[in-house]
Amino acid sequence: MKIAAGQINSIIADFKGNREKILAYSEKGKSVKADLIVFPELALCGYPPMDLLDYNTFVEENTLSLRWLQRHLPADIAIAIGHVSLNMAGSGKKLHNSVSVLLNGEIIFTQNKTLLPTYDVFDESRYFESSTERGIFELKGEKIGIAICEDLWWEAARETDTIYKVDPVKDLLDLGAEIVLVPSASPYHKSKVVKRLSLCQKTIRKGASAVLYINSVGANDSLIFDGNSLVVNKEGKLIYKSEAFEEAFFTIDLKEKKLEEVNLTVNKYEEIEKALILGIRDYVHKCGFKKIHLGSSGGIDSALVAYLAVQALGAENVKTFSMPSRYSSEGSLSDSKKLAENLGVEYEILAIEEMYNSFLVALEPHFGGREMDVAEENIQARIRGTLMMAYSNKWGSLVLTTGNKSELATGYCTLYGDMAGGLAVIGDLLKTEVFELCRFINRNKEIIPENIITKPPSAELRPDQKDEDSLPPYHILDGILVEYLMNHRTADEIEALGYEPETVEKIVGLVGRVEYKRGQAPPVLRISEKAFGTGRRMPVAREIYEV
Amino acid sequence: MKIAAGQINSIIADFKGNREKILAYSEKGKSVKADLIVFPELALCGYPPMDLLDYNTFVEENTLSLRWLQRHLPADIAIAIGHVSLNMAGSGKKLHNSVSVLLNGEIIFTQNKTLLPTYDVFDESRYFESSTERGIFELKGEKIGIAICEDLWWEAARETDTIYKVDPVKDLLDLGAEIVLVPSASPYHKSKVVKRLSLCQKTIRKGASAVLYINSVGANDSLIFDGNSLVVNKEGKLIYKSEAFEEAFFTIDLKEKKLEEVNLTVNKYEEIEKALILGIRDYVHKCGFKKIHLGSSGGIDSALVAYLAVQALGAENVKTFSMPSRYSSEGSLSDSKKLAENLGVEYEILAIEEMYNSFLVALEPHFGGREMDVAEENIQARIRGTLMMAYSNKWGSLVLTTGNKSELATGYCTLYGDMAGGLAVIGDLLKTEVFELCRFINRNKEIIPENIITKPPSAELRPDQKDEDSLPPYHILDGILVEYLMNHRTADEIEALGYEPETVEKIVGLVGRVEYKRGQAPPVLRISEKAFGTGRRMPVAREIYEV
Repeated sequence: MKIAAGQINSIIADFKGNREKILAYSEKGKSVKADLIVFPELALCGYPPMDLLDYNTFVEENTLSLRWLQRHLPADIAIAIGHVSLNMAGSGKKLHNSVSVLLNGEIIFTQNKTLLPTYDVFDESRYFESSTERGIFELKGEKIGIAICEDLWWEAARETDTIYKVDPVKDLLDLGAEIVLVPSASPYHKSKVVKRLSLCQKTIRKGASAVLYINSVGANDSLIFDGNSLVVNKEGKLIYKSEAFEEAFFTIDLKEKKLEEVNLTVNKYEEIEKALILGIRDYVHKCGFKKIHLGSSGGIDSALVAYLAVQALGAENVKTFSMPSRYSSEGSLSDSKKLAENLGVEYEILAIEEMYNSFLVALEPHFGGREMDVAEENIQARIRGTLMMAYSNKWGSLVLTTGNKSELATGYCTLYGDMAGGLAVIGDLLKTEVFELCRFINRNKEIIPENIITKPPSAELRPDQKDEDSLPPYHILDGILVEYLMNHRTADEIEALGYEPETVEKIVGLVGRVEYKRGQAPPVLRISEKAFGTGRRMPVAREIYEV
Repeated sequence: MKIAAGQINSIIADFKGNREKILAYSEKGKSVKADLIVFPELALCGYPPMDLLDYNTFVEENTLSLRWLQRHLPADIAIAIGHVSLNMAGSGKKLHNSVSVLLNGEIIFTQNKTLLPTYDVFDESRYFESSTERGIFELKGEKIGIAICEDLWWEAARETDTIYKVDPVKDLLDLGAEIVLVPSASPYHKSKVVKRLSLCQKTIRKGASAVLYINSVGANDSLIFDGNSLVVNKEGKLIYKSEAFEEAFFTIDLKEKKLEEVNLTVNKYEEIEKALILGIRDYVHKCGFKKIHLGSSGGIDSALVAYLAVQALGAENVKTFSMPSRYSSEGSLSDSKKLAENLGVEYEILAIEEMYNSFLVALEPHFGGREMDVAEENIQARIRGTLMMAYSNKWGSLVLTTGNKSELATGYCTLYGDMAGGLAVIGDLLKTEVFELCRFINRNKEIIPENIITKPPSAELRPDQKDEDSLPPYHILDGILVEYLMNHRTADEIEALGYEPETVEKIVGLVGRVEYKRGQAPPVLRISEKAFGTGRRMPVAREIYEV
């Protein structure tokens, strides 16, 4: 039994493109004499299709594309394709999340998904009805079952407070399945591949003789799918792992004796770097843009984003702007310039003094002689946001924002200012992770100018401003944020870990009070288990209760 | 049997405030010798609590507040309170959406919610486990069942493509329930009360002898709860309807013979006006603000929002700004001024010419001699957004945005410009509805200056600009939008209704391409069945497929 896999990057709603890609990969599978080729979950329509599913034509186009494939796919190779299908039961949600096996023009088997993730970034119960049945099919004398993504995660989902009532994999094995296929659209977060491998191995310990985990690749808005498809043999050994963060085709002959165990090594920052590069590239291209630009403040966040954008799109498609004000240090300009030189990108200067001054003059009669405060600081940031958007409007280049997760958490950022743009590239990286990722990028040579990494972070919106004037040191801030945001610990519990009560209460209060800012932020590329955005849904108008 | 109801406005996470309000209303119930008082769904923690439910302390505070009520509530009156409770079944989601009946310090009965809405703005399957059991309790010889909100909507939910498998009301009646209580947090949309009444009447036709529908009131972010609690007697007659859009206490003696039928009359625009006023007031106050301000362009949208804000907060808490540019007509200034006089609000002028000019000068070297286009238009809108936000930052007043649904749908609005602010007051009103609501407001005297209503709409961002230069006439645009957004009709189907194919395709394409703008919009007060915001979740990066 030779099984192939098409680890493809589907575009949501691009039925023509997706089905043609499935066809091309299937022909490749045919050419290497594979008996079966497996594609990811919802490969035909892209994942997550969200409320496009409310439109009947979307579902119909998906079905017609499946029909088209029945007629065009090569003969004598079975093809497992993820798609949506109508729930015919007469009750429940109108759709299923399905995988069908096509062979010689016929759909020989369909498995609907049983476990529908409805937590964090997932909304599957909004659209799909859970399958009440699990089945298996036979191919070349092998009994094969299909567990669609979450169907494998039965036990792991305990971590998310959902304890499922059905173990779909057990049902497949009860029916005699030997090979378990797991077509998935499992979004990346740090080290998630390790978890996936352990679930595949657990399936072997439950009695499967092989598990093929075929994951989506590519980014759709906030979600980055990392590929990293896995094959585990009957000894529970990982015998194949496909490329991460790119499309891949591979075949595996499960009967072959010589398959050696693959060592799964994960380098956290290498992974994150690749994830963010893919996230940028897909967002920019899938939105129809080619070029991006950003404000380069001379600080570490914008330096990192500029570097990642260059990796994603090529230096010729990236442009950085210094937008100095009366509060900018000389170092900011020279550091931005040095960065642009290192990266080989176009670099321009757009001083904001004249505009800033015209705002101050216009607002003077309305400010009642009050001291300079956050109002004046934000004007500077918003002038910069307006300049970046004007350039975008004039030239059709997308603006990337450069705020990190520590800033987004505490509101240390300006809505419509530095938050203005199409994609928040590092909005799920804590400031301490920003530093570490930059160190990783510089491991062999200085790409991000050393001075950018070592100087004390500053927003430079008032004289001699430093981040630590307003916020605790980042290692403390980030420690508190991890406990609060990721581990859902309360202020009391965090204080019990040894953090200063005053600091904890200040930070927890800030996170609650700036919910409105995050509600208007661009999509944040998700690299952690709990990112801002659709995975964390909070009321804005509420008692700021220090949970 | 004398039943009271507390149609209260809970604040999310304000456990102290909510429980004290429940106590005060219960004491009122006791003072009029009610046997039972009913509060809305999740009255103890507020609805929707969203991901605050992920924090154990939130759930614990809720439980402790229930315990506090057990000890403090008056004796000899039963009190039905909505709250969250732990699912003890060992599988499924960790919480239930519950209503408990407290009597003399004891919880004598608890009903968990069976049907968990997970569509449109609702995410209940994200948090709650569905109840597998329905029960009834006895009080003063009456058998009483509790159907929590959606539990009554069993059949109506067919409209949302969800066909439930259980009819909780039937189960209650099978168990012998005579009185059915329906504690709800049912958000307003136009004429929804008519639908609710028909569901109560249907419950009578299924065999109940009385239905009490006790709804939440108050706004939480986008959702406006309209109160409008209903009592239907065993003849299926509406014998009581409480106040709409305000807190209310009432009692009803079901045995009393003299109860007359209440006529349910709904005036669409009276309803919408009250809804939006409540929506503004609660958002502003629950977010801790007292004052608001907005840009008053001299157009109808900002005029309407200014009027509504005055009704919500009082003229002394509302301030409007004219921010004329070189493209503003004289009429815009005089109309804004007249509006401010009519409303009795503070009014100031902030000309943007100097700022606009300084942007043009700064950007000139970067614009490569290109013609004036949307870049220059948006600069003007963003200067205004920056001015409004600067005033907000300086004085702690909240900015309201004034865009309507037709604009938000087609992207005829500037991100970070006129879209900058805390709340999109009329973002769920089509332009044609804006006109009608203004006519309604002016029905007795001219509040909104007539010229504002009659002049052709214009953004005034370039010479002699009119909305109809870029968009089809509003009655056509809105007709297409209703079919596309609300009825989920496809472009083909809309064309079949008689709309010009070119226009339909242009509009449907626009709606898809400006998803990114709406993703960064402030919360939109929801007054229709399908508003922009959490009720419509679309991918940004995708093939613009004309569904």
